[in-house]
Amino acid sequence: MKPVCLVIGAGAGIGGTVGKKFAAEGYHAVLCRRSDEEGLQKLVSDIKAAGGEASGFLMNAVDDNAIEERVAEVEKDIGPIEVVIYNLGAQIGNRSLAETPPKTFELGWRMGTFGLYRLARCLFPKMVERGSGTLLVTSATAAMRGNAGQHSHAAAMGGRRMLCQSLNAEFAPRGIHVAHILVDGSVDAPDTLGKLLGPEKFQELRETQGAQDGLLLPEKIAETYFHVARQHRSVWTHELDLRAWTDVPWFNSSAIGRSVTI
Amino acid sequence: MKPVCLVIGAGAGIGGTVGKKFAAEGYHAVLCRRSDEEGLQKLVSDIKAAGGEASGFLMNAVDDNAIEERVAEVEKDIGPIEVVIYNLGAQIGNRSLAETPPKTFELGWRMGTFGLYRLARCLFPKMVERGSGTLLVTSATAAMRGNAGQHSHAAAMGGRRMLCQSLNAEFAPRGIHVAHILVDGSVDAPDTLGKLLGPEKFQELRETQGAQDGLLLPEKIAETYFHVARQHRSVWTHELDLRAWTDVPWFNSSAIGRSVTI
Amino acid sequence: MKPVCLVIGAGAGIGGTVGKKFAAEGYHAVLCRRSDEEGLQKLVSDIKAAGGEASGFLMNAVDDNAIEERVAEVEKDIGPIEVVIYNLGAQIGNRSLAETPPKTFELGWRMGTFGLYRLARCLFPKMVERGSGTLLVTSATAAMRGNAGQHSHAAAMGGRRMLCQSLNAEFAPRGIHVAHILVDGSVDAPDTLGKLLGPEKFQELRETQGAQDGLLLPEKIAETYFHVARQHRSVWTHELDLRAWTDVPWFNSSAIGRSVTI
Amino acid sequence: MKPVCLVIGAGAGIGGTVGKKFAAEGYHAVLCRRSDEEGLQKLVSDIKAAGGEASGFLMNAVDDNAIEERVAEVEKDIGPIEVVIYNLGAQIGNRSLAETPPKTFELGWRMGTFGLYRLARCLFPKMVERGSGTLLVTSATAAMRGNAGQHSHAAAMGGRRMLCQSLNAEFAPRGIHVAHILVDGSVDAPDTLGKLLGPEKFQELRETQGAQDGLLLPEKIAETYFHVARQHRSVWTHELDLRAWTDVPWFNSSAIGRSVTI
Repeated sequence: MKPVCLVIGAGAGIGGTVGKKFAAEGYHAVLCRRSDEEGLQKLVSDIKAAGGEASGFLMNAVDDNAIEERVAEVEKDIGPIEVVIYNLGAQIGNRSLAETPPKTFELGWRMGTFGLYRLARCLFPKMVERGSGTLLVTSATAAMRGNAGQHSHAAAMGGRRMLCQSLNAEFAPRGIHVAHILVDGSVDAPDTLGKLLGPEKFQELRETQGAQDGLLLPEKIAETYFHVARQHRSVWTHELDLRAWTDVPWFNSSAIGRSVTI
Repeated sequence: MKPVCLVIGAGAGIGGTVGKKFAAEGYHAVLCRRSDEEGLQKLVSDIKAAGGEASGFLMNAVDDNAIEERVAEVEKDIGPIEVVIYNLGAQIGNRSLAETPPKTFELGWRMGTFGLYRLARCLFPKMVERGSGTLLVTSATAAMRGNAGQHSHAAAMGGRRMLCQSLNAEFAPRGIHVAHILVDGSVDAPDTLGKLLGPEKFQELRETQGAQDGLLLPEKIAETYFHVARQHRSVWTHELDLRAWTDVPWFNSSAIGRSVTI
Repeated sequence: MKPVCLVIGAGAGIGGTVGKKFAAEGYHAVLCRRSDEEGLQKLVSDIKAAGGEASGFLMNAVDDNAIEERVAEVEKDIGPIEVVIYNLGAQIGNRSLAETPPKTFELGWRMGTFGLYRLARCLFPKMVERGSGTLLVTSATAAMRGNAGQHSHAAAMGGRRMLCQSLNAEFAPRGIHVAHILVDGSVDAPDTLGKLLGPEKFQELRETQGAQDGLLLPEKIAETYFHVARQHRSVWTHELDLRAWTDVPWFNSSAIGRSVTI
Repeated sequence: MKPVCLVIGAGAGIGGTVGKKFAAEGYHAVLCRRSDEEGLQKLVSDIKAAGGEASGFLMNAVDDNAIEERVAEVEKDIGPIEVVIYNLGAQIGNRSLAETPPKTFELGWRMGTFGLYRLARCLFPKMVERGSGTLLVTSATAAMRGNAGQHSHAAAMGGRRMLCQSLNAEFAPRGIHVAHILVDGSVDAPDTLGKLLGPEKFQELRETQGAQDGLLLPEKIAETYFHVARQHRSVWTHELDLRAWTDVPWFNSSAIGRSVTI
């Protein structure tokens, strides 16, 4: 029986591609996403066509018990979850505080923070019992600093990062590797950036910035996810960043409004 | 008419004492807290006895519209809120993930993060219209790093810090001063630390650590709150820390389990 | 006898103005700067004209024993140094790595890091003996993150910040308050920014950005320095930032080169 | 002709082992260290015995022109340096400020910060001309926060981290990958930790903490170094941490002296 890699948030970008990578390396990839049954089945059949094992489930992670039930069923029907990827974003584009109603702010938290807590709460006891397990969390620039228009996103991602550190503190010494992977730039992902920008603007971006490797490529991201998941327990990475060579890191503020860079 | 200083979370520790300080400096202090009508009235009458102005309200900040209605009524009945102190904690002591049920985790967020969002959302438009205003947020070590037993608290406080940065980015250039004040140690506060420890252990702590100024004194904290609120807009502080001289800063990890300090 | 406030780097900007503030509050201000005897004497006579006490010394802080001898003489001739301000900058404008020769890089370190170490090494034993003392260090954005053109400055300031934390760890529990004050923006200072920009560009900046309180005003900065120096030892601030309301914080990167703010 | 991997600081721990890894993956490993000709030759012959290519040089990196001449000669005699590992430590154990004389403090900077600047200054222009190159910098906990006894080390490492960010800002868009690898714990390295502790204490540590994978294993560290060096330029990591599963991260302060974890 293959070990299981569960992906929460398996669109055509990071999530699905990481699932493919783990499947290619011998895992049974269990792909969960909120919508697009067709896209989901394509991911599953692509993996199978390449000789891998995969299952796909539509699931709204914010629904009561959705994560908890999925974890329980996967463990029962498919096998022990050795690696789990929490890849739910909470990016809604730039919105002023006035344009961010309470429901939106709360949904950001439910997807960005609370879902991760729920996942850890139902899965970690099983991993602790087995003495090992890996949780890879896709994170975003907004986890490192708030910014205008990012009230909901930054609050959700900042909470997520601190939660990752708390989970690490309690569970690393019990054998669970928690990694917070900061994706600090635009990903070449049709299901997220593509939808945020619209097809034309996204295509244009791909042909300019993307043509020079200026968009993070999901299949390259997947290689680092896989590397981190396989690190020996004497050398675990808890935090790392990923960005395109041409991109300005989150901590390098612009000189706009400044007379000199300070 | 005196300018108004609204305190959300006005217990006998930081909140109430900061309220007293602002009242002594010429503000009408509006004190809100969840419970203990008697304690609340004592704060109000103490301020009045000292020649100041104050009002007190019991309010559960997580109730629907509680913050929004209070802000609206204060603005209508008492006067424009010039300074607001968001002093709601979300510390529940150290609890493992297993001991942190979803309701607890969610309550942490409602008090630690969501309440601050709600406050800013209803009050900032008024401050923007007036061209000025100040929001001082009491923060905790858990905003800087997660730790074992701090799943709920760190997620709430980490989200809060990133929210403060987002609010600052949108609203500082519109005249609103947002400050995130990291209280990195134990406060000599009967209503919070006292209740967490119980009366005996708290008294003992006061007589040992406290006797050497090793507990943060609320009246001394209040001086810095007041200073920050009065900073000229050419020199606003967005983040600062406060700790007792004998306390180990959050970033100075112990040498436990290490052969050398590294 | 008045307590002494020693200022290392007392130009017409932060250093001299902080010296004036402490003199106005009852300290004997000892002002040290590398050059401009005339400017130095003007600061001293301004303080005296206002009824304060001051002394001035030309001193190149990077010279062997310059700091050590000055500290010894001040302690002997004027009185115990209660507060010391380390205000030496190491900003040389933006320079590529190719434009930053070893001598320049080394000078940055000598002014930015090594001088502070030397100051602490000769003065802290005296403060420890007296049971108290305060060191306020002016810091810059480059202490928080490197940036293009900032190789020398960032290395010097990054080392300085970590040194401040080390000094704090050893000496706070022995009664010495060390504060790292991040000046995150352009200061309205003729001796530093003025010289960097040249008189015309500086004047223009004052009339545009400065006219809206968009340049940090030294006399307003001085108020916070003084506040920090007077904090009760139960509530010491170790790190705080200062910036103009209209300025973008160091951690808020621009959206340049990004399709969305992330 | 094989691509060259130059290692500055190639002892029996991280440096030498990373050199071996790159040699095994097809690089010519050029190993430089200050002393122990015998140890150096053993590394070189081990690599050759395994079918790899290697050269070894004794070099005191702080000597004038030592790095510059070595780089020039390697480029001339062996081949273009594709990857360079800067692995010089500056750890001298815990020393109070009084026990840290100026020469020691300066040496820390020369090894920790200045040597890296010198390396980049002589090598990066060649890499820019070739359009690519990789610099991996071994870093330490002290780069993230100062601590008691770490005055020299923290100042050196803090400067180093900011320098890495500056180099990244100027050179990433020109094709050079700079990575700052935080080794946040004790490494199973006889040449560094072994010498710091002495043979008996080191052996004891290996048999206790080490027996449970609680010391970072150099050959496992080397896998991550190699992975980072091979990342596609659309997904470069600039910062990551490595620590043993049982080790407390630098940001998780102890609860010592605190009544509750905060």
